[in-house]
Amino acid sequence: MVAQKLRVGIAGLGRMGKRHAINFHELTARANVVAASTPDHNEREWAAENLQGVQIFQDYDEMLEKADLEAVVIASITAVHAEQALKAIKKGLHVLCEKPLSIDVEVAQSVVSAYEQSLKTYPQQKVMCAFSRRFDASYREAHARVEKGEFGSPVLFRSQTADLYDSSGFFVEYAKTSGGIFVDCSIHDIDLMLWFLGENRKIKSLQAVGVCAVHPGLEASNDRDNAIATVEFEGGKIAALYCSRMMAAGQEDTSEIICEKGSVRVNLQVRKNHVEIHDSHGARRELPQHYYERFREAFITEAYEFTACCLDNIPPPISLQSSVKAVSIGQALQRSLISGEKIYFDGRAIKN
Amino acid sequence: MVAQKLRVGIAGLGRMGKRHAINFHELTARANVVAASTPDHNEREWAAENLQGVQIFQDYDEMLEKADLEAVVIASITAVHAEQALKAIKKGLHVLCEKPLSIDVEVAQSVVSAYEQSLKTYPQQKVMCAFSRRFDASYREAHARVEKGEFGSPVLFRSQTADLYDSSGFFVEYAKTSGGIFVDCSIHDIDLMLWFLGENRKIKSLQAVGVCAVHPGLEASNDRDNAIATVEFEGGKIAALYCSRMMAAGQEDTSEIICEKGSVRVNLQVRKNHVEIHDSHGARRELPQHYYERFREAFITEAYEFTACCLDNIPPPISLQSSVKAVSIGQALQRSLISGEKIYFDGRAIKN
Amino acid sequence: MVAQKLRVGIAGLGRMGKRHAINFHELTARANVVAASTPDHNEREWAAENLQGVQIFQDYDEMLEKADLEAVVIASITAVHAEQALKAIKKGLHVLCEKPLSIDVEVAQSVVSAYEQSLKTYPQQKVMCAFSRRFDASYREAHARVEKGEFGSPVLFRSQTADLYDSSGFFVEYAKTSGGIFVDCSIHDIDLMLWFLGENRKIKSLQAVGVCAVHPGLEASNDRDNAIATVEFEGGKIAALYCSRMMAAGQEDTSEIICEKGSVRVNLQVRKNHVEIHDSHGARRELPQHYYERFREAFITEAYEFTACCLDNIPPPISLQSSVKAVSIGQALQRSLISGEKIYFDGRAIKN
Amino acid sequence: MVAQKLRVGIAGLGRMGKRHAINFHELTARANVVAASTPDHNEREWAAENLQGVQIFQDYDEMLEKADLEAVVIASITAVHAEQALKAIKKGLHVLCEKPLSIDVEVAQSVVSAYEQSLKTYPQQKVMCAFSRRFDASYREAHARVEKGEFGSPVLFRSQTADLYDSSGFFVEYAKTSGGIFVDCSIHDIDLMLWFLGENRKIKSLQAVGVCAVHPGLEASNDRDNAIATVEFEGGKIAALYCSRMMAAGQEDTSEIICEKGSVRVNLQVRKNHVEIHDSHGARRELPQHYYERFREAFITEAYEFTACCLDNIPPPISLQSSVKAVSIGQALQRSLISGEKIYFDGRAIKN
Repeated sequence: MVAQKLRVGIAGLGRMGKRHAINFHELTARANVVAASTPDHNEREWAAENLQGVQIFQDYDEMLEKADLEAVVIASITAVHAEQALKAIKKGLHVLCEKPLSIDVEVAQSVVSAYEQSLKTYPQQKVMCAFSRRFDASYREAHARVEKGEFGSPVLFRSQTADLYDSSGFFVEYAKTSGGIFVDCSIHDIDLMLWFLGENRKIKSLQAVGVCAVHPGLEASNDRDNAIATVEFEGGKIAALYCSRMMAAGQEDTSEIICEKGSVRVNLQVRKNHVEIHDSHGARRELPQHYYERFREAFITEAYEFTACCLDNIPPPISLQSSVKAVSIGQALQRSLISGEKIYFDGRAIKN
Repeated sequence: MVAQKLRVGIAGLGRMGKRHAINFHELTARANVVAASTPDHNEREWAAENLQGVQIFQDYDEMLEKADLEAVVIASITAVHAEQALKAIKKGLHVLCEKPLSIDVEVAQSVVSAYEQSLKTYPQQKVMCAFSRRFDASYREAHARVEKGEFGSPVLFRSQTADLYDSSGFFVEYAKTSGGIFVDCSIHDIDLMLWFLGENRKIKSLQAVGVCAVHPGLEASNDRDNAIATVEFEGGKIAALYCSRMMAAGQEDTSEIICEKGSVRVNLQVRKNHVEIHDSHGARRELPQHYYERFREAFITEAYEFTACCLDNIPPPISLQSSVKAVSIGQALQRSLISGEKIYFDGRAIKN
Repeated sequence: MVAQKLRVGIAGLGRMGKRHAINFHELTARANVVAASTPDHNEREWAAENLQGVQIFQDYDEMLEKADLEAVVIASITAVHAEQALKAIKKGLHVLCEKPLSIDVEVAQSVVSAYEQSLKTYPQQKVMCAFSRRFDASYREAHARVEKGEFGSPVLFRSQTADLYDSSGFFVEYAKTSGGIFVDCSIHDIDLMLWFLGENRKIKSLQAVGVCAVHPGLEASNDRDNAIATVEFEGGKIAALYCSRMMAAGQEDTSEIICEKGSVRVNLQVRKNHVEIHDSHGARRELPQHYYERFREAFITEAYEFTACCLDNIPPPISLQSSVKAVSIGQALQRSLISGEKIYFDGRAIKN
Repeated sequence: MVAQKLRVGIAGLGRMGKRHAINFHELTARANVVAASTPDHNEREWAAENLQGVQIFQDYDEMLEKADLEAVVIASITAVHAEQALKAIKKGLHVLCEKPLSIDVEVAQSVVSAYEQSLKTYPQQKVMCAFSRRFDASYREAHARVEKGEFGSPVLFRSQTADLYDSSGFFVEYAKTSGGIFVDCSIHDIDLMLWFLGENRKIKSLQAVGVCAVHPGLEASNDRDNAIATVEFEGGKIAALYCSRMMAAGQEDTSEIICEKGSVRVNLQVRKNHVEIHDSHGARRELPQHYYERFREAFITEAYEFTACCLDNIPPPISLQSSVKAVSIGQALQRSLISGEKIYFDGRAIKN
């Protein structure tokens, strides 16, 4: 008897789409990429060359209609995430959607509702937002240790996403549709914050300040290139976030969970690999240059585990509702960043 | 010709006073401790044994009157710092005063005024608040590199003072008079923040949140054992602070200065010394157990440089006004911590 | 047109065989494991469960005869490596053989001769010994930097293979057939030494000393559990090696290449992942517990690149002759370790 | 009652002499430098300016005769160490002599004999060789942990002294009288080796190889700029040493003590201070540029403890005999380095 392989379609073959396609196609034994869709001609050419035996579509709807799919991986532009997810959900397909579901919380929430509705018809359907850091081995070890109570209760979650400086103007262009640095960059830290401090934990207040230090063009989109925030939860937990588009040495994505009796930190000593050099610049090591260099293994694990949860009918590793909550917190932080106001919650303002 | 040695009196011989006494007495070649005063009997006994050839007084005023002093080092309890400083200033003595001058900003400011007045009579008089971290070799290297513009303009200053957990109830007792965690602990980070971002830079807003995680008794003194803050300066600078009384492994005092083209960090990889152990607990190193273990060398340098500035009539390494500003910021953060309100400045509320 | 996949057979499904089987079967897109052979009943059961669609044989010869193979991966016990390799070579199959080819240099050399002979008939045939560390990203970066001359000429190569202490008696049992600690453990360091200092560089002398510190039973097999060696090459290069079976914290495989104008080191700060913990044991991190935890990625890359060199007819990344030279150096070190004699070479004693 | 201060004379005011003079004069509360001697005119001028109240002599003998000394610190050129020590010993003075006592073992041994003889007349006399690293806080912690048996018995001692590359020709000039790299550089590692593995432990064999990589002029003095050695002790202990004059980034003096159940390492992650920089060269830190930058604190502790052992009549922290043994091992290693021969001991060849 030959084990069934999950029949996957990839929507979008940009930077992330290509990676998901390769990961599912070549490195996920239990999955078969059978189709991919992209409106971009060059991306379809890339697929023809690199995705052997895969049907290529120009149109997402056509792929859904014609390809024999069990699951879709949505890696298109953010603007169509929700729409594509909704269509796939309605057909009963499993969905792995790149983050964020939407930069509009209402829209994001509508995907959750559609999924909840759909589960009545397709009780084994899995829909999950792709928060890759939850699949990183180091974050998982940190989380397991904290969950086990190794250090007592967590008190402070401190985390940052800090991108390498890019002089091409990319960040300014990108800010026009990204939803802002807290929705785009910090969304990962926010997701981790919920994972470590509790997805159902209510927020009491949050606040952010920031500057445009090296990308003045961001002002026009109500965005900043460096920002810091504090978040206050009920139950005696606090969080401090930092996001930046200005790092000189590489990607510096770090987290600390400070608990009553100890702390665990992930990647505080940022490094690309096991190499260290001693020369006239001192003792030095290189940093990863972008998030994928840091998190490639996590993406592969994500593909593997999403596939397993679909095939084996086990719960998705990340709850869809928490992904909407993350967007909602990101947006509130972005509002505070721009308005300068601290935001207090009475339990309604933010979806707690 | 024999070079003159600075004739120093030490006020207070508690934990810090003893250290200052030994540092000036034994390790500062150009200073002579000629007198010391303390109301505490045991401390006077310690002095009789350990401070050879030094006149010991029970009363500070008597010491000022009878001993042949050029300078005093004030290491008494915080409550009398200002009063003792004022008396010494009036006599034209040089003063090195432990931080803070006072937990009351008005009182602290009155010391500055008295000093300014006194300079008309004693133009060579030096009065300085003992912010020891400014004398730490690593902080100095960091500051020199930033000042030199090695990394472009500083954007974010991030710093923490985090004490080892103490189960004796000391912190709760201490909180009754300390002025709060931001005035007591973070005062060093605030002083460094002013040093790195500019002592004359105006603050736009600040905000803090915190919790009582392991010392619930602090609530009664309107204090917390873990707190985080953000500070927003004019001119596009921001700062993030963390203070804690809960560390499991030791004293974790760290700072980062993130600039446009690079960053410099001090003590991020906290360590006591050059020892590393590999055993069944993994690869590990110990941390300093308290601030003096980390900063002992800085205190010795402080003694040395304060002496030099008195004898050679060169400007004190730290401006007295900036020390008052640090207290004022610390108090504002403490207010925000307790009230939950973000505080905005129009240039008057805080002494900018 | 569907791209051809390399049809691979796996010989031996012990600890390493299982890993190679999974790596080629699931993580090497251009390879298909079509057959596997093992005399062990349990291993065949494992295969039936885990190697879907793969023909399972009890007998290696039968697999060679009946399965439609292009390549074999030999992961059997060392004693049959050479024999199995010779049979596959004669059939014109590509061969990836676990190290060492043989602990007998003459036998190992006979495999090289057979391969050289076979190339006349099968000019595209690839035969390679599996020195996995050459595929590790960090070693590769180090090697590329040295090759590029970034630090001038290499002078000293220093390297160690140090295994976690095992209290089960495994090392004592294993020593009966392993060829000794320099042939078994240090063979990787020796291979890297040749890679970094030059595979054709002649050795002038070598020497080793060692002890049985924690596994006294090794004496009976003329082996040791800790040993250090020096190797002197012509052309002004030296090397220092250390091997151990006694580490308390984990696998500590480290290397340094000290060049005229700088040095590059791999894994000197041994770590399992990006997690660091601060608790009552200090600041600490865990180490990998065995070599596969450290080098898993390198094994996957090895599978990928061996497959590519077979399919694309490009030269194997490691020369077979250098693998024999490594065994020959390992044996000479082991002789010196036991005899206590320094060994000098006139160009014949060791296959230089 | 005023406590007695040790009356110290400094012989030699070169680089090391100046440091000892300042350390004893300014930073050792219980010592008074009362005299100093040096044949060098510039050094005497330096003393006139920097050693206030100290009698300056051109001639060592005259200083011994005329100054009222209790102790001498010998920091002259190595060639006169033994002679000056002998003269002071005969006068009953305490002696702290810079290493090595002599590069001639017989001469060094004659100092030990003279001291043993002198003790009959002056039973409280202290004579000690200045092996500063034994006073380093990190080495002390490592030694205390090993002594306490925290990791079981030590098995391997691995240590290196590696100097920053110097392009001035200094090392070549210096090699003419230094006794060779093992006597000059490695003497510290050898001293530590004896300290950690046992000063009375007998050596079975030793062996060294080396090269002239960047200072070809060393050949003329039978010296090398990079060398590695192995030492085999009775009782199942081994040691590996490395010495170099070629480091690109700074002084790299590191040691590891690998024991049965754990290991302790000193300074493996070489660093100048607590600063780390992230910029376009990666994440980096600086190294100390010379041994004094690394060991300054140890020299001050040495001055303090030598003074205390003289005043309080407690045993010197380092046995004089072990210092001679260190020279003897250094010389044997240097002989092996040049001859290429492994040296075996029957208990007579080396002073065990």
